Amino acid sequence: MRIRVVNPNTTASMTTLIEASARAVAGPGTVVEAVTPAMGPVSIESHYDEALAVPGLLAEIIAGERSGVDGYVIACFGDPGLDAAREVAAGPVVGIAEAAMHAATLAGRGFSVVTTLGRTAGRAHDLAGRYVPAGACRGVHACEIPVLELESDPTVLPRVVALARQALDADGSDVIVLGCAGMADLCDAVSQQVGVPVIDGVTAATLLVQSLVTMGVRTSKRDEYAPPPAKPYAGVLAGFGA
Amino acid sequence: MRIRVVNPNTTASMTTLIEASARAVAGPGTVVEAVTPAMGPVSIESHYDEALAVPGLLAEIIAGERSGVDGYVIACFGDPGLDAAREVAAGPVVGIAEAAMHAATLAGRGFSVVTTLGRTAGRAHDLAGRYVPAGACRGVHACEIPVLELESDPTVLPRVVALARQALDADGSDVIVLGCAGMADLCDAVSQQVGVPVIDGVTAATLLVQSLVTMGVRTSKRDEYAPPPAKPYAGVLAGFGA
Amino acid sequence: MRIRVVNPNTTASMTTLIEASARAVAGPGTVVEAVTPAMGPVSIESHYDEALAVPGLLAEIIAGERSGVDGYVIACFGDPGLDAAREVAAGPVVGIAEAAMHAATLAGRGFSVVTTLGRTAGRAHDLAGRYVPAGACRGVHACEIPVLELESDPTVLPRVVALARQALDADGSDVIVLGCAGMADLCDAVSQQVGVPVIDGVTAATLLVQSLVTMGVRTSKRDEYAPPPAKPYAGVLAGFGA
Amino acid sequence: MRIRVVNPNTTASMTTLIEASARAVAGPGTVVEAVTPAMGPVSIESHYDEALAVPGLLAEIIAGERSGVDGYVIACFGDPGLDAAREVAAGPVVGIAEAAMHAATLAGRGFSVVTTLGRTAGRAHDLAGRYVPAGACRGVHACEIPVLELESDPTVLPRVVALARQALDADGSDVIVLGCAGMADLCDAVSQQVGVPVIDGVTAATLLVQSLVTMGVRTSKRDEYAPPPAKPYAGVLAGFGA
Amino acid sequence: MRIRVVNPNTTASMTTLIEASARAVAGPGTVVEAVTPAMGPVSIESHYDEALAVPGLLAEIIAGERSGVDGYVIACFGDPGLDAAREVAAGPVVGIAEAAMHAATLAGRGFSVVTTLGRTAGRAHDLAGRYVPAGACRGVHACEIPVLELESDPTVLPRVVALARQALDADGSDVIVLGCAGMADLCDAVSQQVGVPVIDGVTAATLLVQSLVTMGVRTSKRDEYAPPPAKPYAGVLAGFGA
Amino acid sequence: MRIRVVNPNTTASMTTLIEASARAVAGPGTVVEAVTPAMGPVSIESHYDEALAVPGLLAEIIAGERSGVDGYVIACFGDPGLDAAREVAAGPVVGIAEAAMHAATLAGRGFSVVTTLGRTAGRAHDLAGRYVPAGACRGVHACEIPVLELESDPTVLPRVVALARQALDADGSDVIVLGCAGMADLCDAVSQQVGVPVIDGVTAATLLVQSLVTMGVRTSKRDEYAPPPAKPYAGVLAGFGA
Repeated sequence: MRIRVVNPNTTASMTTLIEASARAVAGPGTVVEAVTPAMGPVSIESHYDEALAVPGLLAEIIAGERSGVDGYVIACFGDPGLDAAREVAAGPVVGIAEAAMHAATLAGRGFSVVTTLGRTAGRAHDLAGRYVPAGACRGVHACEIPVLELESDPTVLPRVVALARQALDADGSDVIVLGCAGMADLCDAVSQQVGVPVIDGVTAATLLVQSLVTMGVRTSKRDEYAPPPAKPYAGVLAGFGA
Repeated sequence: MRIRVVNPNTTASMTTLIEASARAVAGPGTVVEAVTPAMGPVSIESHYDEALAVPGLLAEIIAGERSGVDGYVIACFGDPGLDAAREVAAGPVVGIAEAAMHAATLAGRGFSVVTTLGRTAGRAHDLAGRYVPAGACRGVHACEIPVLELESDPTVLPRVVALARQALDADGSDVIVLGCAGMADLCDAVSQQVGVPVIDGVTAATLLVQSLVTMGVRTSKRDEYAPPPAKPYAGVLAGFGA
Repeated sequence: MRIRVVNPNTTASMTTLIEASARAVAGPGTVVEAVTPAMGPVSIESHYDEALAVPGLLAEIIAGERSGVDGYVIACFGDPGLDAAREVAAGPVVGIAEAAMHAATLAGRGFSVVTTLGRTAGRAHDLAGRYVPAGACRGVHACEIPVLELESDPTVLPRVVALARQALDADGSDVIVLGCAGMADLCDAVSQQVGVPVIDGVTAATLLVQSLVTMGVRTSKRDEYAPPPAKPYAGVLAGFGA
Repeated sequence: MRIRVVNPNTTASMTTLIEASARAVAGPGTVVEAVTPAMGPVSIESHYDEALAVPGLLAEIIAGERSGVDGYVIACFGDPGLDAAREVAAGPVVGIAEAAMHAATLAGRGFSVVTTLGRTAGRAHDLAGRYVPAGACRGVHACEIPVLELESDPTVLPRVVALARQALDADGSDVIVLGCAGMADLCDAVSQQVGVPVIDGVTAATLLVQSLVTMGVRTSKRDEYAPPPAKPYAGVLAGFGA
Repeated sequence: MRIRVVNPNTTASMTTLIEASARAVAGPGTVVEAVTPAMGPVSIESHYDEALAVPGLLAEIIAGERSGVDGYVIACFGDPGLDAAREVAAGPVVGIAEAAMHAATLAGRGFSVVTTLGRTAGRAHDLAGRYVPAGACRGVHACEIPVLELESDPTVLPRVVALARQALDADGSDVIVLGCAGMADLCDAVSQQVGVPVIDGVTAATLLVQSLVTMGVRTSKRDEYAPPPAKPYAGVLAGFGA
Repeated sequence: MRIRVVNPNTTASMTTLIEASARAVAGPGTVVEAVTPAMGPVSIESHYDEALAVPGLLAEIIAGERSGVDGYVIACFGDPGLDAAREVAAGPVVGIAEAAMHAATLAGRGFSVVTTLGRTAGRAHDLAGRYVPAGACRGVHACEIPVLELESDPTVLPRVVALARQALDADGSDVIVLGCAGMADLCDAVSQQVGVPVIDGVTAATLLVQSLVTMGVRTSKRDEYAPPPAKPYAGVLAGFGA
């Protein structure tokens, strides 16, 4: 099967990192292809960035549909454009926050999210409200490291470890969820140092999509996620219209 | 004060209708300007349309900020781009679903939404979950008339009236919320025929924004709604970047 | 239009303060009349006070109905008698806690209430449960200044400012709601010193009622808020009966 | 021990009925005294009636405190004045809706309320929200018989039985709660005819108060239910002040 | 009437303690018999213990049914086997966590649970979610004293008192619930020293069962709690089958 | 990796069916072993059956731990003993209701459960409350076919198809969850005939456990799921003790 992992921001080095994480867990019959959109922000750190990442993301889903992709991962912890992508794609679409939060509820009684900037905490809480029962997400904690500095800043690992320990104590949680696709490569090290399960959404989502495709489960087209009605679009987005 | 009412779709005749509704209730010192985005779908009837309406909407907010607008109405019942718009604008931003649902809770014990297409009902429920306490929104009912036919189809009024009556009985509700900006001109007629308060979000939002500006209440910039971090954007959306 | 603002306690100087706040925001065509009940407690600082304030409040609503009032504000943060008042009045009735909490959700992601006595915090939480989605009200903080000392105690402003700052940090909130009609005149000063939106319910409720009257929205009389069945009343309250 | 059962309306024949129900279940060492307030409505069928029943009810609690009463039952299904009564009384105070709903959750998985007038259903739902977990109260059904006709109307029993059966089917419930103190004497007959547990709040509340007194559990005076601050009251309610 | 109090663990000295607590509050016509199961763990301090205590508990319920018992108390704060026991027994079955949490909501605005081991806190939260409205249980605090040391450790009382005080402050609660049947004899002392109502579930549950039997309320057999379908059982549990 | 699928009932033919479903989706490197407990009921159709299935189930988990199993599936839709199994096992443990409900939320907006006996619907609702956000599970519908007749009754498929269609309409759902391990082989046929995604928990859970093991995610042992304290057990269950 073919799984397309869409990095919704336009930074190709992050796509490379994401692709490596996804490939490391995919089964032998699964082809993982990670893609970078042609338009949008270099990183997603606000509602504004997230909203403006969606057109580029949707273009990658549309292209995937034309080329026979079986399922999609949206590889940004805000899960931008998830509902729209489900309308467009025939196969399953899973966001990395969605996958990580699901996995976290299977690994313990309550999780804490460790993320980049504090200003995105509200979005994480909103997503938790959508994906998991009330009380499962016990806190969202920010290390205040911008997304694009995750790769280069050598203090990232110790800061994330310290924050994770603090979060477990403050929240009474027993699982850590990493709140950014750019943290995927920290997962094992944080888990070993902190001593609890640590969930990276990229691997979790890749395996969830692979599982759904294996089960033959696609997005229901009964009502809300039916293909969107065709219609004209204006301006530079005209190409998205009929 | 100046209130900018943004019609997130690109159909100018709908902007004209919306502007008339907003002006009809605005106070003597309030200037209402309704605008149509330069890019995006001609109507919003899916998550896909909604996501792709946001760039055009945000461009109108950015332009409003440059010209001294005091507050904004987002005049589509899905309230697209609301969080992003609150980051960009200094003054208040209110969505018409948000305003209508608030007003409805002041007028009775529980409301039903009467909307256009059934496939948008999930979005209305999501918004109710965000805006009003559990139980306030008792049902969402679709007349299955596409947005752009609301203006021309002569059966709209009787169908909406019949659906509103049915909704009140089925839901045990006592207030009707109109679930589309394009229904604004039906408000009085439906209320008179059905005998309960009927809320149009365009007028409700215009008056809420006017009230917030009068009170001197702007969007809090303490955390989540602080201005988005400046950064490069790629492709046809490059103009949205720093 | 005529808006009657009922101060549910029997302290006339507080009515004067409330009237000034309401008039300061009302539109040019709006007549604001603030009234003091003829019976009940001099201030409302317990469930007992609140319950016993309601007969005097309802008498003012009944009198208002006889004289053509268009809408009502209940100007005590416990919103006493709100449901009963909605049965009696034809036009809209809004409580100041209700209005302030609604406005607060439009100005940020989560609010803290700063109130007078800690013993009233439970009531504030109950009202938040009724008016806003779970999670919107993030905390209630008391300065332990009795209601009638708000006017005379010169330390009120600095204590409220300090408490507001503390509340924002402790609760992770971004908006402050003032939890007493007697704090209405502190609103601007607290907002300036603390740097976030601060909501006073008297102005918020006055503008909401004005907006509802402008929109032609009255309380639904379909079921629960229909006029109460006429019947005999005994004792000193006999005048409230048929 | 002495338990005072306060009928919040001013109809003495209903007090007699209530007293008989309470006495039928009280233990050998328990003295039950049912009282009728000196002021207020002859029956409670609206928020207005309920609010205006509270002063008379509180006067009976105050009198009870002076004469050494150990605990109180508020014998109207709206549980009027419950919070205020808990401030005034040292011993436990239990409302009949509260007691009935608690008992119902012990007798099955979900209950339906069968009540008098449909306009009071909202109050029943509000109380369920306060007393029992979400989902326990599965419906409120009205027979539309006014409170004071319960005693005299010979069709009451068959109508309540028919409504109870309908409620069980419609709601998927397995327990019936009677939604009016005036239905207390129907409890056994309805249970026998319908074949599920039927809960009368008067007996449930009497036994709960007796149990709490036996356990030595009184209302916590730590914060919210501490005695109300003494202060002047104006007008015909001056006697309630300090 | 006969009430059987089942201690779900196999430590007879704890059964003796529980029996004394139950008998101290039972009415003159009530015979209390406390029993110890023939199989299972000596104390319940994990989900594992709890699950494996249920067969022994159910055997005691089955034996009680054969000998004409009127109602049952499950005297472990995890309320093990409650649903299964309700299927088997004709009369009411009440767990001590259930009874204690109900009583606590009648005695104040919010309670804290003081329990033995921290690892059981999740179960207490789950039960609170089942028994009381969201927000009523404000915290669960563990003294980390194993169940079987409660009887012998002389530091238990001061440690529980200190923890209770801490819980009231941290949680903003006004009532304490004791989270273990083995704490039943501490109830009065803790209440006197801490100054708020303290609830022991053994006495609360005994009185609740006595009240339900007095009212004639048994478990509804309409659906879920109907007697379990008879069928073969294999292995050492074969005796539980038909 | 080795995944042990425990059929909690003692009917070996059902274990065979379950094993086939699990093996059909497992990856090339995964060994699936399905086991039947040595004690307990032949099918699980009540809380009583479920409680008494747990000792046999736990014995299979304990045996699995001794033989190096990597993860477990609990293959009964009531997910019996899940918390206890998580304490005992080092690797992940997933219930089939848990897995099916998670997968269902990824495939649509709301699901309906189609199950065997109506008396188990309450358990399904309880599990939905634990696993998925409020509102995701929109209804539970029973075909009233006993578990052990699923294999032999030729009318099962058309009855389940008819019930699924009815459930989608009644609940406004877009996904079907099969509520019994014994329905696993109906999954594809129901999906094809009904036209929406249909989820079987056995395959969903097998793939989830395989994914968690691939990711290296085990159950957190920080607090609640730490190994249970060792202690003596009495009677026929003595072997479960230390």
